[in-house]
Amino acid sequence: MKIIVDAFGGDNAPLDILKGCEMAVKKYGDVQIVLTGDEATIRKVSKENGISLSKMEIVHAPDVMAMEEHPNQLTKSKKNSSMAVAMRLLSEGGGDGLVGAGSTGAMLVGATLIVKRIKGVKRPALSPIMPGDTTPFMLIDCGANADCRPEMLCQFAQMGSVYMKAVAGVANPRVGLANIGTEETKGDELRKETYKLLSELKNINFVGNVEARDIPFSVCDVVVTDGFTGNIILKMYEGVASALMGKFKQVFKKSLKNKLAAASIMGDLKIMKKDLDYSEYGGAPFIGVKKPVFKAHGSSDAKTFCNAIGQTAEFIRADVIGQIEQSVGVFEKADENAEQGE
Amino acid sequence: MKIIVDAFGGDNAPLDILKGCEMAVKKYGDVQIVLTGDEATIRKVSKENGISLSKMEIVHAPDVMAMEEHPNQLTKSKKNSSMAVAMRLLSEGGGDGLVGAGSTGAMLVGATLIVKRIKGVKRPALSPIMPGDTTPFMLIDCGANADCRPEMLCQFAQMGSVYMKAVAGVANPRVGLANIGTEETKGDELRKETYKLLSELKNINFVGNVEARDIPFSVCDVVVTDGFTGNIILKMYEGVASALMGKFKQVFKKSLKNKLAAASIMGDLKIMKKDLDYSEYGGAPFIGVKKPVFKAHGSSDAKTFCNAIGQTAEFIRADVIGQIEQSVGVFEKADENAEQGE
Repeated sequence: MKIIVDAFGGDNAPLDILKGCEMAVKKYGDVQIVLTGDEATIRKVSKENGISLSKMEIVHAPDVMAMEEHPNQLTKSKKNSSMAVAMRLLSEGGGDGLVGAGSTGAMLVGATLIVKRIKGVKRPALSPIMPGDTTPFMLIDCGANADCRPEMLCQFAQMGSVYMKAVAGVANPRVGLANIGTEETKGDELRKETYKLLSELKNINFVGNVEARDIPFSVCDVVVTDGFTGNIILKMYEGVASALMGKFKQVFKKSLKNKLAAASIMGDLKIMKKDLDYSEYGGAPFIGVKKPVFKAHGSSDAKTFCNAIGQTAEFIRADVIGQIEQSVGVFEKADENAEQGE
Repeated sequence: MKIIVDAFGGDNAPLDILKGCEMAVKKYGDVQIVLTGDEATIRKVSKENGISLSKMEIVHAPDVMAMEEHPNQLTKSKKNSSMAVAMRLLSEGGGDGLVGAGSTGAMLVGATLIVKRIKGVKRPALSPIMPGDTTPFMLIDCGANADCRPEMLCQFAQMGSVYMKAVAGVANPRVGLANIGTEETKGDELRKETYKLLSELKNINFVGNVEARDIPFSVCDVVVTDGFTGNIILKMYEGVASALMGKFKQVFKKSLKNKLAAASIMGDLKIMKKDLDYSEYGGAPFIGVKKPVFKAHGSSDAKTFCNAIGQTAEFIRADVIGQIEQSVGVFEKADENAEQGE
């Protein structure tokens, strides 16, 4: 399979991206890479760092989509950026999937406007795989759609189920609705209406509302929410963990006695921290567009980026898109409740 | 001052509530207590446990509002519960403030329907004081109003500022809008519209949007949000901290070496945990009703409940209600954008 890689996306591009690609072609025998970006720079950086470009081809793109640029510029002033070229290449059949570590907003624009939605899907979602206490779970949506309607959340539930079953191998994914209480009458209007619709869906295993305090404890495999709330959940995960780790560090550095104690358990603490670090999971698929598009973390190093390529390969192999397309009838059924003109 | 206490609210009622009241009358010289609940039980439990009822009076209430009961029953089948009697007593001038550890939903019903809103205030809010990395902050609203309009969030900002200034002594409270990006164009429709209105308010120190990942780092003193999102933030705080603590415990118990290391820093870890435990902050005021109503944690022990009485006393002394009433003109100005008929 051919995986298109935006060689100039992310904090450590292009060096770590190229290193990650080299690792991936060695690790995954069936993977070939199509790099997009400035060809001379790619060749120069590879040569200087002894990176082999075997099983890789380059499609030249002179520009770079910077992180601070408005996402909409992707199809305007930055249509010759490595990201825009990668998206067009994917759309035109030049590869089976795409992975990039660039701006999430710009990748969403590319996925939606260039790769385009699967027919019948109302909105693509950004849906990271998060570390839970015992098993990982998918958070869908986590920022692609700030304002959602109930039928959009139903599609997230269905698409998330397909992904977790096909890619993560969960036999009958438990779908939970992120809410502020477990009873079906809890929450805002969006949640109350969504609860009813989810209860009626035959093709998912809806386990009801899940409270935020239970989300980290792996109580379900797919956590369904609007993009605003999902982003708050994602970033609270990050913020609280970071604040707490900071407090632990203060304790560990407080005295010589504490420093010695910390040193003796540091190895185990590092393993624990890695287990909890969602960047280790490689990133987040955009679900609902016609071809696999995978967002790697902006801070990806070579190894994390190699993992992201592996996830994208799995996304392609499992034919998630095909399975979603086959379910389009189901989605269109959910559409009956939707507003006109969409 | 007279503080009304629901003697039968919370997991540890009435014993820990009575103990907490005894501690409070000793600790705060100007505080008298009015207990509501079954008089015979209160006297029996006090006698059996050697609790002095000095500076306390009892107003008999035969029923108890159970946690699992629908909040609306407070004014119906449970109108003779200790909570309902406490709320009516407060409303009729039988005390200067009220503190209870019973069901949050039922207390909200009581605060709204019995104590009633301050004229001009659209919605009362539940607004806990949360531990931040360096300084605590108020989260307003955190569950009283799942569906909010922009002008409601503006009032939360104003009322939260008054409280943090008057009770917590913050000179010029920094008000932040919880959002999914820092730019003013970020977020859902509610956030975009609220951002504009908050920017125009003269009587608050609006510092812009705050991302969820920065909330634990004390980047502002008042975090403004709708009750749905606020509840998600509150419970993510709890859930992520709890999951992470669990992981640390696993590491600490993994081997004899780790157990020894953990034992030597356990004292400092306990202090840290206490700093982060928001139940130590005593609870959450309901802001926007005519008299001070304070929600203590359901799991309050005697000491935590005593702290909650102290917070309620401060709420009364600082005349937060008076200051909000004086600002009513400002609130009514914000009302011009509201729907008719409210």
